[in-house]
Amino acid sequence: MSAARIGLVSISDRASQGIYEDKGLPALKEWLEAALLTPFETVTRLIPDEQPLVEAALREMAEECCLVLTTGGTGPAPRDITPEATLAVADKVLPGFGEQMRAVSLKYVPTAILSRQVAVVRGRCLIINLPGQPKAIKETLDGVFAAVPYCIDLIGGPYLETRDEAVRAFRPKSAQKPKA
Amino acid sequence: MSAARIGLVSISDRASQGIYEDKGLPALKEWLEAALLTPFETVTRLIPDEQPLVEAALREMAEECCLVLTTGGTGPAPRDITPEATLAVADKVLPGFGEQMRAVSLKYVPTAILSRQVAVVRGRCLIINLPGQPKAIKETLDGVFAAVPYCIDLIGGPYLETRDEAVRAFRPKSAQKPKA
Amino acid sequence: MSAARIGLVSISDRASQGIYEDKGLPALKEWLEAALLTPFETVTRLIPDEQPLVEAALREMAEECCLVLTTGGTGPAPRDITPEATLAVADKVLPGFGEQMRAVSLKYVPTAILSRQVAVVRGRCLIINLPGQPKAIKETLDGVFAAVPYCIDLIGGPYLETRDEAVRAFRPKSAQKPKA
Repeated sequence: MSAARIGLVSISDRASQGIYEDKGLPALKEWLEAALLTPFETVTRLIPDEQPLVEAALREMAEECCLVLTTGGTGPAPRDITPEATLAVADKVLPGFGEQMRAVSLKYVPTAILSRQVAVVRGRCLIINLPGQPKAIKETLDGVFAAVPYCIDLIGGPYLETRDEAVRAFRPKSAQKPKA
Repeated sequence: MSAARIGLVSISDRASQGIYEDKGLPALKEWLEAALLTPFETVTRLIPDEQPLVEAALREMAEECCLVLTTGGTGPAPRDITPEATLAVADKVLPGFGEQMRAVSLKYVPTAILSRQVAVVRGRCLIINLPGQPKAIKETLDGVFAAVPYCIDLIGGPYLETRDEAVRAFRPKSAQKPKA
Repeated sequence: MSAARIGLVSISDRASQGIYEDKGLPALKEWLEAALLTPFETVTRLIPDEQPLVEAALREMAEECCLVLTTGGTGPAPRDITPEATLAVADKVLPGFGEQMRAVSLKYVPTAILSRQVAVVRGRCLIINLPGQPKAIKETLDGVFAAVPYCIDLIGGPYLETRDEAVRAFRPKSAQKPKA
């Protein structure tokens, strides 16, 4: 079995210009390494907050990845266009991810309601917007990832297994395979 | 007073082809019989996951029913098109139903966030998408039905009364009639 | 520094015709006076539930106000068009406000899920739909206003300070100015 491929996209004008160091991609990679038992490869991108660029990156990555995680660009500021770009490439919108990520973040900060993050399916790829801060990335992935492997099963992707000590993937019994 | 009419639509490729027995329609009917004090008739349909067929069924049933409940077809899989069909026939979208149904289901399974169920108003009819599993149908109806009778009042439908031991319909005092 | 300008719009067929007294505008004003430390002026409108009128009022007020609060017209009834009018003038939609306002109201009444209220950004203005009832206005503003000042910072508006005893505005440390 070939490794699962996961796309990671950091969307930030300043990090992409080298004004400051990108902390989104390392945070996403670190979280996945701790959580996934299934071998995987990552494909990464660091791009500015330009809707056509974000859409193009998502379209391209969705061809080869079963999962794409974005970080950054989900707030209310004029340059924040990640949700718009994500919705523009969507086949199906999954409102439960955004609702649950905001509900989780709201336990930490009241401004969690300003996040406009969405999750969508494009072809056989699940795309999820995450916040920009490493701490918030971890909190929200901890809060929703249990549903991700089964979602990827349903859209025709590889069977992902998680490390129970980090996150426990949930599947109905009929969808479970014996542990690798 | 004539009986209220309620539409029940089970959306499933396999059940509609007879590959397995439909359990959605009996679960919906059983729940309503336990919950409603007001006499009602049901109109039922069992159809495959084809968006034009689902839209046509919803359009037709909305003419004669004050409430239409669908079951099935709300997940992320390519054939799941119930929410798209429902939104396509909507006059108004009621996002609170989907939010609350997912919040209720999330107490039972983390994959509840994968459900894309919506509720909409079409003319004088409230249409609500429910999950496919009988257990999840009951859990989500238990969680939202208290708001349904007042919603039907507001869109010009019949005054529905519930059995308090099953579910207690809520109406502001100004909208309450003496118990039948 | 000039005073912040805040638009208040009560949307009601009957109140705008004088059939009953508008209670929305006084409730909004009273809440803001208790909550804001920053001096502010209000611009008010009382209009019927006509979508073109509501859209025109929102467009005009968004030119000069950093915040517009609407009251009324968010239910499922045919004449309730406030969310549609608000979405029609939106540059960006902020789904977290509606979700959180319904979650807060749900602690008081199960029919909270019938509210379709939304919040959007138009230019440098944040527009938030609130319920019609003074009690529900207070409950929902109490539940979401902590995020409003930082949102207004992010869209280029004035720096609003709140009275901690009423509501404690939250900003990340990097966005905080010394207390006035």
